[in-house]
Amino acid sequence: MIALLFSLMGREVKRFVDLSADETIDLWFTAKKVGGQLEHYHKASSLTFTIQDGPQAGQTVPHVHIHILPRKGGDFKENDEIYDAIDEKEKELKQNLNLDKERKDRSFEEMTQEAGEYRKLFL
Amino acid sequence: MIALLFSLMGREVKRFVDLSADETIDLWFTAKKVGGQLEHYHKASSLTFTIQDGPQAGQTVPHVHIHILPRKGGDFKENDEIYDAIDEKEKELKQNLNLDKERKDRSFEEMTQEAGEYRKLFL
Repeated sequence: MIALLFSLMGREVKRFVDLSADETIDLWFTAKKVGGQLEHYHKASSLTFTIQDGPQAGQTVPHVHIHILPRKGGDFKENDEIYDAIDEKEKELKQNLNLDKERKDRSFEEMTQEAGEYRKLFL
Repeated sequence: MIALLFSLMGREVKRFVDLSADETIDLWFTAKKVGGQLEHYHKASSLTFTIQDGPQAGQTVPHVHIHILPRKGGDFKENDEIYDAIDEKEKELKQNLNLDKERKDRSFEEMTQEAGEYRKLFL
């Protein structure tokens, strides 16, 4: 089970309502394209799209982003356990962005390999 | 805590990826507008947006729709409990659409009152 975190690039925008029309279109057109490709790549049959829009919705990184998760039958015992996985991913992201904390970078080779796999999906 | 289920009107489309460009834009522009107004109306401070896109993601009504939930600090003991509420709403919707099952219609007066409250938000 892969959780892909899709982040809006460009200026930092905290809340979904503050995106411009063009940003909103760009974000969701890209999410649709990425979701479709990831579902196919992971041989999944459904997708979960979630925006935790604001701190009271579980957002810990104050920058609009969509969680996109390819889903398969029986991937989680209970469907809602997927959201624990989203929260874990959110914490991990926060930790990675916190430069005061020690973190182990992935190697250049690891990142290149993963990027290469996904790049092929959009050729 | 109110969960608003926002359904795409018009033709029936099962999966998010099958929406046309215009439908995708229309759906998310409307969701943004509705989310902003509901957050204000319910004196909330965050929003949860979720698409359960396909049966393996918890979708029981095969028609693209977004769950929009105004969120407040402490509204759920654990943030993830919100998704149990979404699943309940999904089951309820399915039951309401199943015409073979008995269901108690809300009265015309009840529906008029609720519609009137929300209509005021978009004047």
